[in-house]
Amino acid sequence: MFSTLRRSFNIGINSIFWRKSKAGPSAQFPSLQYSNCNMSKTALIILAPGAEEMEFTIAADVLRRAGIAVTVAGLNGPDPVKCSRDIVILPDTSLETAVAQKYDVVVLPGGLGGSKAMADSQIVGELLRAQEGDGRFIAAICAAPTALAAHGIACGKTLTSYPAMKKQLEDKYSYVDDKNVVQDGNLITSRGPGTAYDFALKISEQLVGAEKVQEVAKGMLLTYS
Amino acid sequence: MFSTLRRSFNIGINSIFWRKSKAGPSAQFPSLQYSNCNMSKTALIILAPGAEEMEFTIAADVLRRAGIAVTVAGLNGPDPVKCSRDIVILPDTSLETAVAQKYDVVVLPGGLGGSKAMADSQIVGELLRAQEGDGRFIAAICAAPTALAAHGIACGKTLTSYPAMKKQLEDKYSYVDDKNVVQDGNLITSRGPGTAYDFALKISEQLVGAEKVQEVAKGMLLTYS
Repeated sequence: MFSTLRRSFNIGINSIFWRKSKAGPSAQFPSLQYSNCNMSKTALIILAPGAEEMEFTIAADVLRRAGIAVTVAGLNGPDPVKCSRDIVILPDTSLETAVAQKYDVVVLPGGLGGSKAMADSQIVGELLRAQEGDGRFIAAICAAPTALAAHGIACGKTLTSYPAMKKQLEDKYSYVDDKNVVQDGNLITSRGPGTAYDFALKISEQLVGAEKVQEVAKGMLLTYS
Repeated sequence: MFSTLRRSFNIGINSIFWRKSKAGPSAQFPSLQYSNCNMSKTALIILAPGAEEMEFTIAADVLRRAGIAVTVAGLNGPDPVKCSRDIVILPDTSLETAVAQKYDVVVLPGGLGGSKAMADSQIVGELLRAQEGDGRFIAAICAAPTALAAHGIACGKTLTSYPAMKKQLEDKYSYVDDKNVVQDGNLITSRGPGTAYDFALKISEQLVGAEKVQEVAKGMLLTYS
């Protein structure tokens, strides 16, 4: 079966390997797990049902362009995830599996449904508290900062979000209205689809430096300063 | 099995319906097909292996935000498609199935691998020639205008592309270097990931009008004029 699947997915020889998922409904959807070999910086992006697919895709794509080893972890397992505008994406692995290792950054894409699912998730809370405790980066965009608030992460810090989320955040945080991306120490936040490139480039800059990020931006026909 | 899959994908009741794919390797990946009911404008987006996933996702998401009924058609069938930065996306259906109906616009995302696959595809050539013959919209971004050239589409018209593709296009077309999006009649072209929002908004404007597009842009924290 594996050889059939490899053909079907046009899989590169070295970049990924197949992992058969656990028994149950998910067993018929083998998931991908990204190989982190020879890459120094790592990112975990949580993919929850109802995630904003542009914010998710821009984060994963831009970080990979920057040479960061990105693991896309399905919140509810390794099965395909239906995003906010009905694009269906296969995670590399389940969040449950992914949290066995540490990452330089944990990224939370927005989308109302995805953010609520992350806010309600015990495993996300545990992951974020460990990430914060280690002094590693946490990044959230659009509605996703509400998941930080739900888990009591980074309270008192300066952040931004999708404008409609402001009321849910301004009591716990120092809220910024007028910047596309806000960084306060190891917390990086941003506002919505229209700021997603800036968000992904800022995360990348913190992990691989400005020179590499400017090269990545130029390749996408963007500027980053 | 369907009820299990419906749970697994968190599927909305009315927005989509399941279609069991043909026998063979793809049979274990049931695909989604978007319901076009009550939507007047339609778009077909071709998803080929190696497609640039940001350009694909932004086009599909923005057009759906604009109320356009988008069908995501897998070039090689309904199976999951591995994009240029290893994000794996499930099409709604196969291109072979999708071409049974007409669309107001056919959209070709970029990505070197995806564009070459579309350039080499007989069914894409037939689809584009029929679309051009009907006077309906064709839209291509980044490397994808090279697929238009390969199939002899829109020769002599004004267009743009990812800058590195210019040499492959300037003999057949009037090439524009200095605009993010170029429209010449029913042909809309654009340059790369950094211009993908402008590209998707321009397509949407042609189908649903400026007022709706400005509302969509505002919701994404962008401006469109």
